[in-house]
Amino acid sequence: MPNEPTPFAPALSRLFGRSKSSDVRDLLESAKQPGMISMAGGLPAAEFFDAPGFLAAAQTVLAGHPEEALQYGPTEGQAALRARLAALLAGRGIEADGADIVVTTGSQQAIDLFARALIDPGDLVALEAPTYLAALQVFDLLEPRYLHVPSTPHGLDVDWLAASGARPKLLYVVPSFANPTGSTLPLAQRVKLLHWAADNGVFVIEDDPYGEIRFAGSREPSLYALAQRDARLAPHVAYTSTLSKVLAPGLRLGWILAPLAVRRAAVRIKQALDLHTSSFAQEVAAAYLAGDGLGAAMARVQTAYGERAAALCDALESSFGTGLEFERPQGGMFVWARFTDGTDTRALLDVARRLGAIFVPGGAFYSDAAQGESRLRLSFATNPPAVLAEGVARLAQAHRMLHRAGPRAARELQA
Amino acid sequence: MPNEPTPFAPALSRLFGRSKSSDVRDLLESAKQPGMISMAGGLPAAEFFDAPGFLAAAQTVLAGHPEEALQYGPTEGQAALRARLAALLAGRGIEADGADIVVTTGSQQAIDLFARALIDPGDLVALEAPTYLAALQVFDLLEPRYLHVPSTPHGLDVDWLAASGARPKLLYVVPSFANPTGSTLPLAQRVKLLHWAADNGVFVIEDDPYGEIRFAGSREPSLYALAQRDARLAPHVAYTSTLSKVLAPGLRLGWILAPLAVRRAAVRIKQALDLHTSSFAQEVAAAYLAGDGLGAAMARVQTAYGERAAALCDALESSFGTGLEFERPQGGMFVWARFTDGTDTRALLDVARRLGAIFVPGGAFYSDAAQGESRLRLSFATNPPAVLAEGVARLAQAHRMLHRAGPRAARELQA
Repeated sequence: MPNEPTPFAPALSRLFGRSKSSDVRDLLESAKQPGMISMAGGLPAAEFFDAPGFLAAAQTVLAGHPEEALQYGPTEGQAALRARLAALLAGRGIEADGADIVVTTGSQQAIDLFARALIDPGDLVALEAPTYLAALQVFDLLEPRYLHVPSTPHGLDVDWLAASGARPKLLYVVPSFANPTGSTLPLAQRVKLLHWAADNGVFVIEDDPYGEIRFAGSREPSLYALAQRDARLAPHVAYTSTLSKVLAPGLRLGWILAPLAVRRAAVRIKQALDLHTSSFAQEVAAAYLAGDGLGAAMARVQTAYGERAAALCDALESSFGTGLEFERPQGGMFVWARFTDGTDTRALLDVARRLGAIFVPGGAFYSDAAQGESRLRLSFATNPPAVLAEGVARLAQAHRMLHRAGPRAARELQA
Repeated sequence: MPNEPTPFAPALSRLFGRSKSSDVRDLLESAKQPGMISMAGGLPAAEFFDAPGFLAAAQTVLAGHPEEALQYGPTEGQAALRARLAALLAGRGIEADGADIVVTTGSQQAIDLFARALIDPGDLVALEAPTYLAALQVFDLLEPRYLHVPSTPHGLDVDWLAASGARPKLLYVVPSFANPTGSTLPLAQRVKLLHWAADNGVFVIEDDPYGEIRFAGSREPSLYALAQRDARLAPHVAYTSTLSKVLAPGLRLGWILAPLAVRRAAVRIKQALDLHTSSFAQEVAAAYLAGDGLGAAMARVQTAYGERAAALCDALESSFGTGLEFERPQGGMFVWARFTDGTDTRALLDVARRLGAIFVPGGAFYSDAAQGESRLRLSFATNPPAVLAEGVARLAQAHRMLHRAGPRAARELQA
């Protein structure tokens, strides 16, 4: 019998070979199973989305100035939205005109634009370890070297960084309610970080998706706001944020603030990538932000997430006691915890998934997946308190099964 | 007096250095001047956008299933839209399930995803010369070598390609109503192109933004549809199209069809770039496509563009006679013309702009801008017949001024 000829397939690029699928997104498939309690994804609570408010905004736009929403628009973004975002930033202590802002397809695209404007293969990029894994995915495509900065309970270790003598090209940091750690860099460390950057010629990308979701403690000024007050520091910081965590991820609206040369580079690259972000989504968001919906949405989210964080932490304490270490978060969406008994959280996930509860194993947030194997990230955002309590009960049962079974049986449990 | 220290600015990447700003987008700024008649941009006519239809669709979505539109969604796109696009493709003779389709942020992003999945630096990419300049912008970022395939009045020259002996990694082509030439590849040449690709291990990216905007002549099957019928050809073709040209560019919705390995690579890369395209825009488009709005919109656009193309061509003939060569288009949005008197169309643009009429000089569509200097692209889509006639009158006046003035005065006219 003659061999079948191998069907043609074009060779995929080296760049594709560097791309990684996200463990979290793969877990989202499991999250859809009926009865599954997902503490895995970073999904905002859908019950607080203001659908009537968006419908009213869509009416305003499509009945009033439809061409703005339906025609091609500028790569930088719609003027109406940029003006509203400038006003929103003023509430965060950041001075900006609409003309200083570039709208992006979520802050995910902002990270890609910054990365492509700044990183050449081999450049040294500093990141907290652990860090937001989708930022790692973006950077990986450009083949940088990494400087992994240790975490502390209060954000990345600025003293370690200063003592390292390293002079990375850029530093990526989520200074408020980081993903996955939930921790926040104190003011003194923020100032120290900025001076370290200025002294060492480092460019800092500040990613601020969660800063407004604070339900305890007091707000720290953003790195960008601090740098604005000092001409020596200002050229060292770019900022990105998003409407995803408080308003609605489905809009896919984020934005950039950056020194002029970086901003122009980001716009030039974005022009080639997708011309511009949906003007329809932009105009509807602008009309929404013209009302008072955002403040109300923010207040609902802050209150609910505070209750949910407390419920999750209470349940974890009563189920695991000192067997599980974590800090109680003051904001954001995540609890970052570590088993003191050496539990392998990937093994735990395999058992827990069959009991109807999922989370993200800690290894997903390190570029070296062997790290963080006793850690896990739990999101409290998506589920109400009673569901979180049941989710933790399932985790506790999985933990008991895993340890009662012993290593060999545990492998069988996972099979 | 001591020198001021130079303010810090981070070095921009080599990738940024390869990016080019688009002449066309820069011209769009001029298009906004009061009284300016723009035949430059590829903007669809805004008066045919169905704003009430989109508002009804937004109502359906936000009152009926808001979470689908406002929450994070799959990287591949919303199931509702993918199913509607599959139905739309059936009307183009393409068999596809929703699951075969990946939604992109316009077909611009589709080109970027294909390029990043397939091109390594130095790879040979074949393009018609002239070609869609924003495709060139995307490819340039990946540092390929180019094979420039000559144009004929009936699309790219497949015989030249076959005789060249070249075996490019991929070929990018707009086979129906190409941008800028407006020309369409006949069926026999399509079949020949596919067999050439299969014989030479070439992967073909078929970009089909304009295929449905036909107002004369008969439809040619898409390359993808032809390849589907032959197992040897099918692995050699990917397809992208968009809702921008007929429904509304502001939605920024395009899509991909491709052999499985290429599709999966595109999804993996897209996940890192922007997680997914606006689910809000996707769900509203899906609800719109569930009604009969598209057929009506298409009919309005076909009729109007046919009238506009005729008006533009009539005006060009009566103003320039044999001094300007062009083919009357059967669809799309553009007339591609050549001055037989050697007029430099960049110089002509400078004069015409001050008289209140703009177009795109031919050089913008070649990677070697010295080419096409007596050519120009005129869009007939955006303006009604009387405005196009006035625009051509201004061009004719500019042409007279330029030639009466002689070379030196012409330079002064432009100053």
